[in-house]
Amino acid sequence: MKLTTLPKVVEPDPQQLIWKERLNTSFSLNEMHAFLEGSVEESIHTLCLMQEIERDPILQINPDYYELSRDEHREITAKKIKRLAQYMENDEPNFQNFQDRLNLIALIDPQLGTRIGVHLGLFLSAIRGNGTDEQFNYWAFQRGAVYMKDIYGCFSMTEISHGSNVAHLETLAEYKQEKDCFTITTPHIGATKWWIGGAAHSATHTVVFARLIVKGKDYGVKTFVVPIRDSNHDLYPGVSIGDIGEKMGRDGIDNGWIQFSGVEIPREYMLSKFTKVDKDGSVEEPPLEQLAYGALLGGRVTMVTDSWRTGERFITIALRYAVGRRQFTIKGEEIENQLINYPLHQKRLLPYLAWVYGMSIASNQIQKDYKIILQNLDDGVKSGDFGLLTKAIDGLKGLFADSASLKSTCTWITAELIDESRQSCGGHGYSAYAGFGKGYADHVVQCTWEGDNNILAQNSGRITIQKVMQFEKKGNVSGINYQFIKDAKRDEVILSNEDDLKNLETLNLSIKSIIYRISLKCISTLSSNGKNWDTIAKEKLSLSKLYTAEYIMDKWISKISDIKDTGVKKQLINLARLFAISNIDKFGVYFLQHSVISNACYEEMERYTYEVLKSVRDEVIGLTDSFKLSDFFINSVLGNHNGDIYHNYLGTVKNLNDITQTKAPYTSELLSMLNRDSVSSREKNQKSEEILAKLRI
Amino acid sequence: MKLTTLPKVVEPDPQQLIWKERLNTSFSLNEMHAFLEGSVEESIHTLCLMQEIERDPILQINPDYYELSRDEHREITAKKIKRLAQYMENDEPNFQNFQDRLNLIALIDPQLGTRIGVHLGLFLSAIRGNGTDEQFNYWAFQRGAVYMKDIYGCFSMTEISHGSNVAHLETLAEYKQEKDCFTITTPHIGATKWWIGGAAHSATHTVVFARLIVKGKDYGVKTFVVPIRDSNHDLYPGVSIGDIGEKMGRDGIDNGWIQFSGVEIPREYMLSKFTKVDKDGSVEEPPLEQLAYGALLGGRVTMVTDSWRTGERFITIALRYAVGRRQFTIKGEEIENQLINYPLHQKRLLPYLAWVYGMSIASNQIQKDYKIILQNLDDGVKSGDFGLLTKAIDGLKGLFADSASLKSTCTWITAELIDESRQSCGGHGYSAYAGFGKGYADHVVQCTWEGDNNILAQNSGRITIQKVMQFEKKGNVSGINYQFIKDAKRDEVILSNEDDLKNLETLNLSIKSIIYRISLKCISTLSSNGKNWDTIAKEKLSLSKLYTAEYIMDKWISKISDIKDTGVKKQLINLARLFAISNIDKFGVYFLQHSVISNACYEEMERYTYEVLKSVRDEVIGLTDSFKLSDFFINSVLGNHNGDIYHNYLGTVKNLNDITQTKAPYTSELLSMLNRDSVSSREKNQKSEEILAKLRI
Repeated sequence: MKLTTLPKVVEPDPQQLIWKERLNTSFSLNEMHAFLEGSVEESIHTLCLMQEIERDPILQINPDYYELSRDEHREITAKKIKRLAQYMENDEPNFQNFQDRLNLIALIDPQLGTRIGVHLGLFLSAIRGNGTDEQFNYWAFQRGAVYMKDIYGCFSMTEISHGSNVAHLETLAEYKQEKDCFTITTPHIGATKWWIGGAAHSATHTVVFARLIVKGKDYGVKTFVVPIRDSNHDLYPGVSIGDIGEKMGRDGIDNGWIQFSGVEIPREYMLSKFTKVDKDGSVEEPPLEQLAYGALLGGRVTMVTDSWRTGERFITIALRYAVGRRQFTIKGEEIENQLINYPLHQKRLLPYLAWVYGMSIASNQIQKDYKIILQNLDDGVKSGDFGLLTKAIDGLKGLFADSASLKSTCTWITAELIDESRQSCGGHGYSAYAGFGKGYADHVVQCTWEGDNNILAQNSGRITIQKVMQFEKKGNVSGINYQFIKDAKRDEVILSNEDDLKNLETLNLSIKSIIYRISLKCISTLSSNGKNWDTIAKEKLSLSKLYTAEYIMDKWISKISDIKDTGVKKQLINLARLFAISNIDKFGVYFLQHSVISNACYEEMERYTYEVLKSVRDEVIGLTDSFKLSDFFINSVLGNHNGDIYHNYLGTVKNLNDITQTKAPYTSELLSMLNRDSVSSREKNQKSEEILAKLRI
Repeated sequence: MKLTTLPKVVEPDPQQLIWKERLNTSFSLNEMHAFLEGSVEESIHTLCLMQEIERDPILQINPDYYELSRDEHREITAKKIKRLAQYMENDEPNFQNFQDRLNLIALIDPQLGTRIGVHLGLFLSAIRGNGTDEQFNYWAFQRGAVYMKDIYGCFSMTEISHGSNVAHLETLAEYKQEKDCFTITTPHIGATKWWIGGAAHSATHTVVFARLIVKGKDYGVKTFVVPIRDSNHDLYPGVSIGDIGEKMGRDGIDNGWIQFSGVEIPREYMLSKFTKVDKDGSVEEPPLEQLAYGALLGGRVTMVTDSWRTGERFITIALRYAVGRRQFTIKGEEIENQLINYPLHQKRLLPYLAWVYGMSIASNQIQKDYKIILQNLDDGVKSGDFGLLTKAIDGLKGLFADSASLKSTCTWITAELIDESRQSCGGHGYSAYAGFGKGYADHVVQCTWEGDNNILAQNSGRITIQKVMQFEKKGNVSGINYQFIKDAKRDEVILSNEDDLKNLETLNLSIKSIIYRISLKCISTLSSNGKNWDTIAKEKLSLSKLYTAEYIMDKWISKISDIKDTGVKKQLINLARLFAISNIDKFGVYFLQHSVISNACYEEMERYTYEVLKSVRDEVIGLTDSFKLSDFFINSVLGNHNGDIYHNYLGTVKNLNDITQTKAPYTSELLSMLNRDSVSSREKNQKSEEILAKLRI
């Protein structure tokens, strides 16, 4: 709502600034969106789903979302879950469509995404992964879990004293032969199931990770379906559940704790695709145990997608604001300069824009790989063909390694991106209605759950080192995404002049090469310290992050070569350069130490970086409009498409905070303070000379 | 509350672990606390204030603090303000005592600290700094603002379209000679006062930053006292105020926006220590304009103290948890390893512990300087002695430079510290009751307000470069804290072997030297690019951070030499080493590029770092107990002194979330979803073959 301005003053002009740059965009947004989404078809598919979501009366999201209390979040989330159950039935049998829908919903309402993600991606995935076909068929289709009907599931893995170390969980599942059942027991406080999403108030069933004990022997952690609430939502005896309460974010999720006190479940409720227990208590152990722990991989893959989309959303807000906001004049100018024109501002934000493009590539690739590998596994298990299965397992191992690196690196980058974007909007970034506060609080849990980032990165780094060891020993290396090790030259300086910095292949080679050299260094350290991997923890962490950089660069370069549209191509080359250079800069110490870059070239790179930043800067409006996120999906007073930042902001604040209420409910407290009597009168002059004289001896 | 454990299982033992390490502490906590607080007297003083605060019935803080809604925060905060007004009267005339009290309150309830900080530190400081003695005396003492009586002030500086660029604010204060008054006007939306703490519902008066216009001439931004609410808390006509609503954190503060529509104030309400306007409209301009902008410096100084104390609080939580928490076994061990034993965990957290110690030194020093400089200024202005005044202004300039670097560096470090501490506690760090979520959200605004960190760091970096220019030109340099430039050797490698890494003087020299060499490099860039300071923005940022590192190391080394207690001394040397090394590592590219450290020594440093980490690790319980923060000040389920993490955590969750309420208010939503009819029945079989056959032509 435009407001009245007095004459002879100049009001701010963010709208004009943003529109001017928008109109100067040199490339096709449609083409770019297709690149980001993976294809023209995917682009259309995504936009259709977005339209459907933003029009749905129940799925609405507005700035007041940022004001809701925990109870309100919970209630609204429940209504939305119910609504989404209808979409589930409607999408059937195209469950991928529902998954895509859910990924988009997760962008604007992460807690809602998780609520359903836990049921589908953890509870049902665990049954699918660990149960027999018959078991899956019963719980998913006959009972209706796949449509959130009859059954609402949660996933009881973590305990209060064990999160990452799943093999050491302490809940017990003891086989009681006389009753042909398992008894589920929480033997002490440390084994209390904790953080269980959906447990506090929603779930009717849960998959429990518990130690299988048969005839006193401990077979390690297996999975069991345990009913916890009946169809009237009353808790079963022996099942104690509580809300774990307020969290940093995502309060729409009713995370709970569960304690089991000798809860009996039929033997048939054990998920038995791999481990089987007979009526007489004989245990058949799994031939391929690693297959039993696949439930979390889907989540990790989804988090790469989620990081990408979340990155799109927040970098758009920051960059639109940076174009529309003026502050300080530069030498020789009258009118204040746009924030985005300051080299430091570009350096703070634009590498993250490049990362967002990079993450779209990573997301598209790993989603594709994941689907193929899952299919191969299913085919392998069904056919019983050991060769097929072994190949599928190799794929699974590769996915484990890729997702460990990509999940940890991308969720971290996105957390940084949100925070830097907020800071770049100055004070206004701190308004809840800017979206960054809740965005950050909701996002950062992804750095911790479903595989703590530090632990995943350690795994990924270790795998890379082992692959280099393998190559050093055999001259060959397994795993499709580790073939780059062969190309990584060993001793030369790779970046030595500006031409090298412009060449994407050379930049990429430098990243491959630094991975190689750091790994060699680690191998030498390991051989001298008795294979103590803990002392090279920092290097493993760096290797994991560099692996993602290499993974993205590799695919980026090959995708660029497929692009016809020269306008789009030019932008993507620029962004890829910026992506590579900012990664080299981040790990500059390694690059210098290992002489992958010459000292002179490093200095040259610092200068050249500003050149690349400048050319990306010139198209920032187009490069963020390309994400095609409507204002509904942006949901920020600072980032609307129309660029009218100040009217949007004041308008929202006025809408949500009734200005006719000029007095607060606590006004009387303040008035009684301000209008209070003097100290001496309040204490009846008890310290006055007159009184003291009376009291004097 | 200890709970029942079944036999034959081993429950977690965090209490035992923490107590065992506590009992092995090798140094005196009292001595260490005295070091941290600056002296034995200060140590006692702080502890007495803490006791008083934690016992006060109104000032209570509990885990439910993390659950409060905005309205609840506001109301409780108002009650606490009222309570603190009594302490103000009680502390009089020792206002320093009240300030110390307020700094401690800010640790547990930052919003409350700010509420009073805005009134005292901004509103009243502005009157003190910019008003005449008579003006200050009237508003502060005669009216009672200094006791929060009669007057509650806010500080109307920032506008919706101007924050950092104060000189460009657009609110108008036009002198109307015929009525001998100023008219305060918000000419357009961009000049709307925004983020004004206390404006939405509390303040009776405000200091307004507005452009002084007399007879059509614009004299730039000056300050005016403007009454906004009467003694009944009704807004004056022409004053429009609204709540800016929900924020990322600190919702107990009623930040508001203000628009003035021709509000008249008497000429005498202009703060006239420097600029004066006569009845006839003649304007006397200030001889020393820089004195007029001192109001924010106190806030910056306080933020150094606040960063230190906040750092103490959160690193204590993370380190107690790291000692008490076990996860994963290491080779050859049966029982799981404590988190703190992992080198990566040490590397993630212990440099921040060193920073906390460093920040205590910085805080003590800059607080001392601040008091002296303020006194000198007062003396200078009162005496009218130009020599005295010039000296005081030099001090002010030095304080401006120091506080720019220290405020920005320390608030950033503390933000990182909170976030890394949270992540280091895994999933449990995400619980609101751990304290990190609100702690982070409340803290990070310090990186933005009262001087955006990036802008302050640019200022600081620029000053350093100018000082080096001065030294290069004249062989001399002004400013007590820039004398180090003289010592900074230029060309040699300073760190070349392990002995160098152990020597605090040498480590410090390497930091001085890198500052020198980066500055020289910048000077050469500036001379070749036509003095474009923007292109060396990154270097300025680094210089600012390195300046703080040098500032701290310098004082740290001299303090260590004063210490008698050998136990304490040993710890402080270790921590100082870690502090220096982690700073060198952070800026490793510069150190290598400029050959301040040799390649070989850099490698040596990586190994040596783990040695230093290990020796700090061995005393982490003692080194955090030394902060003497009671559980009241820690307010985290993960960080209690007793170490009984899991019982504390479950106990709090059960207290705050009634477990007898097994059904949520939204249960009916979920039940109606779970127990719904089939799709075909809900749509009355309208897609069945039977129906479709009827419809077929």
